[in-house]
Amino acid sequence: MLYFINDYMEGAHPQILQRLIETNMEKTPGYGTDDYCETAREKIRAACSCPDAQVWFLAGGTQTNATVIDSVLAGYEGVIAAKTGHISTHEAGAIEASGHKVLELEQSGGKISAQAVREYLKSFYADGTYEHMVTPGMVYISHPTEYGTLYTKDELRAMSEVCREYKIPLYMDGARLGYGLAAETDVTLADIANYCEAFYIGGTKVGALFGEAVVFTPRLKVPRFFTRMKQHGALVAKGRLLGLQFDTLFTDDLYINISAHAVRLAVKLKQAFVQKGYRLFIDSPTNQQFVVLSPQKLAELEQHAAFGVWEKLNKDEIVVRFATSWATDEDDVDKLISLL
Amino acid sequence: MLYFINDYMEGAHPQILQRLIETNMEKTPGYGTDDYCETAREKIRAACSCPDAQVWFLAGGTQTNATVIDSVLAGYEGVIAAKTGHISTHEAGAIEASGHKVLELEQSGGKISAQAVREYLKSFYADGTYEHMVTPGMVYISHPTEYGTLYTKDELRAMSEVCREYKIPLYMDGARLGYGLAAETDVTLADIANYCEAFYIGGTKVGALFGEAVVFTPRLKVPRFFTRMKQHGALVAKGRLLGLQFDTLFTDDLYINISAHAVRLAVKLKQAFVQKGYRLFIDSPTNQQFVVLSPQKLAELEQHAAFGVWEKLNKDEIVVRFATSWATDEDDVDKLISLL
Amino acid sequence: MLYFINDYMEGAHPQILQRLIETNMEKTPGYGTDDYCETAREKIRAACSCPDAQVWFLAGGTQTNATVIDSVLAGYEGVIAAKTGHISTHEAGAIEASGHKVLELEQSGGKISAQAVREYLKSFYADGTYEHMVTPGMVYISHPTEYGTLYTKDELRAMSEVCREYKIPLYMDGARLGYGLAAETDVTLADIANYCEAFYIGGTKVGALFGEAVVFTPRLKVPRFFTRMKQHGALVAKGRLLGLQFDTLFTDDLYINISAHAVRLAVKLKQAFVQKGYRLFIDSPTNQQFVVLSPQKLAELEQHAAFGVWEKLNKDEIVVRFATSWATDEDDVDKLISLL
Amino acid sequence: MLYFINDYMEGAHPQILQRLIETNMEKTPGYGTDDYCETAREKIRAACSCPDAQVWFLAGGTQTNATVIDSVLAGYEGVIAAKTGHISTHEAGAIEASGHKVLELEQSGGKISAQAVREYLKSFYADGTYEHMVTPGMVYISHPTEYGTLYTKDELRAMSEVCREYKIPLYMDGARLGYGLAAETDVTLADIANYCEAFYIGGTKVGALFGEAVVFTPRLKVPRFFTRMKQHGALVAKGRLLGLQFDTLFTDDLYINISAHAVRLAVKLKQAFVQKGYRLFIDSPTNQQFVVLSPQKLAELEQHAAFGVWEKLNKDEIVVRFATSWATDEDDVDKLISLL
Repeated sequence: MLYFINDYMEGAHPQILQRLIETNMEKTPGYGTDDYCETAREKIRAACSCPDAQVWFLAGGTQTNATVIDSVLAGYEGVIAAKTGHISTHEAGAIEASGHKVLELEQSGGKISAQAVREYLKSFYADGTYEHMVTPGMVYISHPTEYGTLYTKDELRAMSEVCREYKIPLYMDGARLGYGLAAETDVTLADIANYCEAFYIGGTKVGALFGEAVVFTPRLKVPRFFTRMKQHGALVAKGRLLGLQFDTLFTDDLYINISAHAVRLAVKLKQAFVQKGYRLFIDSPTNQQFVVLSPQKLAELEQHAAFGVWEKLNKDEIVVRFATSWATDEDDVDKLISLL
Repeated sequence: MLYFINDYMEGAHPQILQRLIETNMEKTPGYGTDDYCETAREKIRAACSCPDAQVWFLAGGTQTNATVIDSVLAGYEGVIAAKTGHISTHEAGAIEASGHKVLELEQSGGKISAQAVREYLKSFYADGTYEHMVTPGMVYISHPTEYGTLYTKDELRAMSEVCREYKIPLYMDGARLGYGLAAETDVTLADIANYCEAFYIGGTKVGALFGEAVVFTPRLKVPRFFTRMKQHGALVAKGRLLGLQFDTLFTDDLYINISAHAVRLAVKLKQAFVQKGYRLFIDSPTNQQFVVLSPQKLAELEQHAAFGVWEKLNKDEIVVRFATSWATDEDDVDKLISLL
Repeated sequence: MLYFINDYMEGAHPQILQRLIETNMEKTPGYGTDDYCETAREKIRAACSCPDAQVWFLAGGTQTNATVIDSVLAGYEGVIAAKTGHISTHEAGAIEASGHKVLELEQSGGKISAQAVREYLKSFYADGTYEHMVTPGMVYISHPTEYGTLYTKDELRAMSEVCREYKIPLYMDGARLGYGLAAETDVTLADIANYCEAFYIGGTKVGALFGEAVVFTPRLKVPRFFTRMKQHGALVAKGRLLGLQFDTLFTDDLYINISAHAVRLAVKLKQAFVQKGYRLFIDSPTNQQFVVLSPQKLAELEQHAAFGVWEKLNKDEIVVRFATSWATDEDDVDKLISLL
Repeated sequence: MLYFINDYMEGAHPQILQRLIETNMEKTPGYGTDDYCETAREKIRAACSCPDAQVWFLAGGTQTNATVIDSVLAGYEGVIAAKTGHISTHEAGAIEASGHKVLELEQSGGKISAQAVREYLKSFYADGTYEHMVTPGMVYISHPTEYGTLYTKDELRAMSEVCREYKIPLYMDGARLGYGLAAETDVTLADIANYCEAFYIGGTKVGALFGEAVVFTPRLKVPRFFTRMKQHGALVAKGRLLGLQFDTLFTDDLYINISAHAVRLAVKLKQAFVQKGYRLFIDSPTNQQFVVLSPQKLAELEQHAAFGVWEKLNKDEIVVRFATSWATDEDDVDKLISLL
């Protein structure tokens, strides 16, 4: 069986595992106060060209979104997001469970536009009854999106301008950020730190056993985030496990290099699909590829490969997702291509 | 420096690490649906003599308490706990953040008595205004407690009787359960599954990199716990990491054996303290030892050893905590003893 | 100035005020345990042909929605509602503040269709990842809707069938229920009690100083609603004020009669608009009328009348709302008509 | 039967009822934006000697406490209160339902001391693990307390000093504030506005049908309180009802005068108890009197009078409460005295 079902099927990148083995019996203080966390923070600040950023390590994505959003918003505020955003759909209401409404906007290719956000904010404040409504207090985007697409630098800048005009922070969910940075894109980590007030660098899907690194730029004040992490059950006792993993990922560009591998294989797969006459559901430059299959082809491929069945467009067309990762074997990609 | 500061300073027990290494590149489905989780569940059910228990794996203790308690309680219910209970003090209000009051009772040695719980419940329902108050919907105990003490089998049975009389579940926080089971005690895992409706078996402090195993006995129905875990940010994507660790811990009694090591060294240390004339703050049979030191002795010991400063009783007496763990080296204990 | 801006500009219907005056110095027990509440409950049960209904009195609409929905839903559940529903828009996130997501569906004339709800539920459970998502636990409709429209008996029956098929309760927000019952409609209070599991009968907008009566049919179990009301700040100390008002409204059909007055005047106004060539934005049979005005006409009318400016369709067309109520003077309606 | 069971058995003071009658058919804008609310605000600001205070009107006490406390605290903060405080006991967990822990201190006569608060705060920040705990973010006191007692001016000043030292606001629950101001006391409304950052002036128990007036001094910034009120279901549609009532209460000292009546009768009753050899459970200077009765006397009195049974001290002594109010008839007090 060829596995393309998601990007978190394996353990950790061997270099990370090696560090965990080497340091296993070391004794360190808990809760992220150890030296490995500190060096990881330094490396992340450097990679973001943001020397004064606050960097925090959490265990998983939903936890990170819920903790960050709840910590940044006031009680009367909600968060603007795409209808297809992860927080809107697949986090079991974690944002609402902490008291905040997700203000859902229509999306295109998983993205929301600065224009749509501006119109939302403008018409919100133009409404004489706005004080009866949930105040938009933050914009949430994911990059890559749920559909593998990326914001361009211009799009990010435009979104940032809207947010700053309305004095609300821009927050980026980077669960798959590595695959976004390693794709064909004009957006760098420094750009992200420049345009977003907060974001997280995903580890779980990009080489770590588990772990996400939250970056708060100095433009955003988040008091007592440590306490908030504890309150949200997001404070890892053996914090050094997270520090070690991110320290490794941000040494010698490992994070980008292993992401580039996944992206190269995904693009190779995409090109094969196109060449063989399949219709792309969306043209994704990253590690997730969404393709339209006939029911027959789907049934046929399922004999040999595991992948995600996304959406039934009509009786003849089904959208499926193939995901590569840092761990994908090129042989498997080639075998899959041979089956198309 | 000799380290006795807590029981989560190191990584994982070597056998666990070995399993993680061996399985690192295997591809498994996510979120605890893999085979390792399944075998771990079976082994835990067997160890608890509770073949119909539901078993779930979460990443950390505060997260586990918050998710379990919020999932079990109705919105109008609170949880009875000792004033010194972990949920009452050191979880940053995680229980209240999910909407529930912690109903705090006076404790003795970290424990609450069945008698005190019965009186609380009796006087609650005797109060004509009880419908204006938070309904007690669960009893929370920890075993070992924050002070290292243990409930006896009789005490557990009595607590269970009160809970069943009032039809509320008894929940045990077992962050350090191994050290409780391996101590001199008449309480077994099967007893716990018999007297408690829910409990968790701590991994983070007992040999795992991270992870706690929640056990729901068939006497307690908890609908959609999977969704609740997701909502609380407690669902681990690479769930097999948790399954593998607990599978290892529950193979060939590893969990008990490594706990017994920690307990033996803690008792050795306790006896040395007693022999040398120190006053125990509390007589703990488990891996945490609370001793009274003079300021001079404290200052002297701090030159050579790291331990926890708990509480200042008066100007001449300070309570400190020494914790051993599965990873403690007997040499370190002997060196510490030689310094007393 | 002619006032048509909303239906809560005045105090109470004179008969209600009279009862408050007559009983002012009587001494009654608090929190809805008095005899006036009890007779009001009986009269409401009779009016609903639902002798076993639970009836509770709360002070206002948002409070009622939040308390009912939070009390009925489990923590992992959300509530399906129209995008334009009051809980979706104008309750400042009260539902989310108690931890529940509002699952918003597209609407037509303020209504959602049984068909749309069925499709939502069907595709929810067909989605392999549904356990990662908020479980739909209730359907919320308002009747009349935010646009003054009404569900037909067939539509209610169809909605009820979907809800029962999926075992979730149907809840009706009846903030303006009187105006719905007194309009041209085939839906009676008994039908509502038959098709909905819970609903509330609005008093604030229909003759009371303040107050809403929640009806739980025996098909829905809501444990400890009294405590939930207290917890939500919705328990009125001098509960007899609510009992007295609803007792009066449900004596000699006062509730329907005063509603019929408002509806007759609203329909008279609607017909005048139509006759004079104005376009209705929506054809409402109840006390709220939505009409399209030109900017010139709007400016002209605003000199003489107060009404709600709803939405700018384009530069030449603006939607406005005229509301009548039990307190509207027919002279004012005639004067307004003469200005059209 | 003689009624002394609580202070909310009747409707409104006749002058308030008269204003409601006179203005019943006036048309005013909703949600507290009318002129009656505005003049009431001005009169309250003047009575408090605090010309820049924000004043808001809500319907009931629990609602007011929950809305104020949730609006003032950050998500990681809790509120310090007496164990016997209303928010600690009789609000069904309303504070926790909005996510905040009530940090309960031991009390004496219903009061907490500045000294106890200082020690709590001092030891909190001295604890190396304080970031794992709920941050104390506010002090809540009630005045009169649940036991009818009052803080002295010196006690308030001392409490204020602690709060300012630790930069947290002092909030006073004034559900029965009138009875506190009209008692023998050196504390004025201006003192309260001087020492507390926020407080509320109770109407429900002091002459109004319902209603509480929240005062925020300029020292406390509470953004979007209007939205918070809506979110908490505490925004009254016909806000002018609240404005009218408080305008009346703060005209010609009505609030103080009717409170003084209640206090005079309560003190008369207290003196009679003392004279006849009964033991006071507490020496209350306000409208609530707590007396110790024998079971025989209790049974005897219950034949003729309704009062509150508070607490059984032992088999021979039971604490009961007699409450007077603005509506108490002196004849009833005299009759009660004759029964002692």
